[in-house]
Amino acid sequence: MSKHKVIYDTDPGVDDAMALVFQALHPDIELLGLTSVFGNATIETTTRNARFLAGRFAPGVPVAQGAAAPLKRAAPEPLAWIHGDNGLGNIAIEAGVEAALDARPAHRFIIDTVRAHPGEVTLIAVGPLTNLALALADDPQIASLVKQVVIMGGAFGTDGVLGNVTPAAEANILGDPHAADMVFGAPWPVAVVGLDVTQRTIMSRDYLASLRDRGGAAGRFVWDVSRHYEAFHEQSAQLTGIYVHDSSAVAYVLAPHLYTTRNGPVRVLTDGIAVGQTIQKPSTMPMPAPDWDTRPESKVCLDVDVPGMLALYERTLCGTL
Amino acid sequence: MSKHKVIYDTDPGVDDAMALVFQALHPDIELLGLTSVFGNATIETTTRNARFLAGRFAPGVPVAQGAAAPLKRAAPEPLAWIHGDNGLGNIAIEAGVEAALDARPAHRFIIDTVRAHPGEVTLIAVGPLTNLALALADDPQIASLVKQVVIMGGAFGTDGVLGNVTPAAEANILGDPHAADMVFGAPWPVAVVGLDVTQRTIMSRDYLASLRDRGGAAGRFVWDVSRHYEAFHEQSAQLTGIYVHDSSAVAYVLAPHLYTTRNGPVRVLTDGIAVGQTIQKPSTMPMPAPDWDTRPESKVCLDVDVPGMLALYERTLCGTL
Repeated sequence: MSKHKVIYDTDPGVDDAMALVFQALHPDIELLGLTSVFGNATIETTTRNARFLAGRFAPGVPVAQGAAAPLKRAAPEPLAWIHGDNGLGNIAIEAGVEAALDARPAHRFIIDTVRAHPGEVTLIAVGPLTNLALALADDPQIASLVKQVVIMGGAFGTDGVLGNVTPAAEANILGDPHAADMVFGAPWPVAVVGLDVTQRTIMSRDYLASLRDRGGAAGRFVWDVSRHYEAFHEQSAQLTGIYVHDSSAVAYVLAPHLYTTRNGPVRVLTDGIAVGQTIQKPSTMPMPAPDWDTRPESKVCLDVDVPGMLALYERTLCGTL
Repeated sequence: MSKHKVIYDTDPGVDDAMALVFQALHPDIELLGLTSVFGNATIETTTRNARFLAGRFAPGVPVAQGAAAPLKRAAPEPLAWIHGDNGLGNIAIEAGVEAALDARPAHRFIIDTVRAHPGEVTLIAVGPLTNLALALADDPQIASLVKQVVIMGGAFGTDGVLGNVTPAAEANILGDPHAADMVFGAPWPVAVVGLDVTQRTIMSRDYLASLRDRGGAAGRFVWDVSRHYEAFHEQSAQLTGIYVHDSSAVAYVLAPHLYTTRNGPVRVLTDGIAVGQTIQKPSTMPMPAPDWDTRPESKVCLDVDVPGMLALYERTLCGTL
């Protein structure tokens, strides 16, 4: 098969870094570029981290700097207690390896790259969706030229989970709810892996230790970068391990059969006490719902083959695909 | 044990009728009264039906007529395609058996009855929550005098279900979202069985036929009243049987161990595209959420022992408890 040509829109972020390693090492993915966005840390930090990650694990792949703040809200505070003060779990970030910084803003990089490869580009978006919304606003026609958009974000309630930052909202979508509602409303194929599914996918400490011992430099890096993140999970969720958020979007691209999905348009609440909530109208729901019915259908992941997903990540890092 | 003294706040409604039979026949429930509310049909229809049901199955139990419309919205259209033109599946409604109509409005009946039995009254509420909100508004102190409020309403997303009338809202709560938000905000013990749990509890046609053949006059009535309702389920959900909505609230009162619950304050969205949605902040969620944190905790049902619930209903109707 031909490779997936991917633009990785990211706010690294520990799990963003783990998902970058996954993409860089999987032979079926061709990374065309990374685009940074505010989110887990400030845009300065996430851009620095994206350049470090690309330079170290995907040499030659460019990075374009994206939005510093959401379309209509103030930028959120960096999530230092989750991702560390430097956004990468407080590991040492080597100087001198960083990828080149593209001169264009992220949304322009997305537009140009999509137009250079019509029908071929997959956007993997694991932060606030501001860059994608800006690209749509500048050039709405790209929606028909993108192969697919795969998002880690939101929550759809299976297992009773609707949010992590508020009772109704997940961090990426709450980071820019207006942008997210635009992205779900555009006529490109969108699939989304929400919190209720990513929180079911857990890398235990033993699993991570095995990557450290068997996964070469990448496995060692994944172990190192996840120490602070794992301590956060242990403290906040009594979990000896970590939730697999952003890598779930990568796994969906590589192996969609691992995910059970439901079709139907998705809206994002842009105000009120549940701002940031993602709500799908299942395509099987018979009654009209005007706020949904004019919009394209997305695929929402409802369940995942957890052992299958974890095996895919492990085999990718250990070179045993 | 002493009996549960119950006021049944209801908008009959086919499944309301089935839940009334359940309460009337179970020896651990003492019905103090029925209060009617708009919802499945107009207040005139639901009041007439409540009087018929009480007169036929709970002789001597009074009925008080309640609200004709929600606090701040227009009354919804009757759900004739679900409950029949007469609200009771178009069965013949005998004249001459109907219960006495209490002179007081429903909310005053609730206040007086609660004050007459301080700490003892359970409110089972299976329609829009307008009567309960009016009672709270007139006499806020009753909140501390009610034993518990058990609601069938809303949806909490387990199994991915957030609504039936809209993608985000269930009919009872959408019927009066402002009232519902008041009821969840008052300092009385509230438990709620939502759509995602009641839709997991299914009475098959065979189950209903068995009630018809073994449950005497009550079983025969349950069969008759559910024919139109079953046809609706077959047409809308390809189900050879019916969802057990309102009787689930009764089962929770009688056998709470059949339900898995989660504690935490519940808010109801009162405007926007997701109006009517019920959102709980689980008590285990560590971060602050000011719109929830000042409110009392409710118990939200997340799962049910389906065979246990169905056996309880069957044994009650067949007199084999």
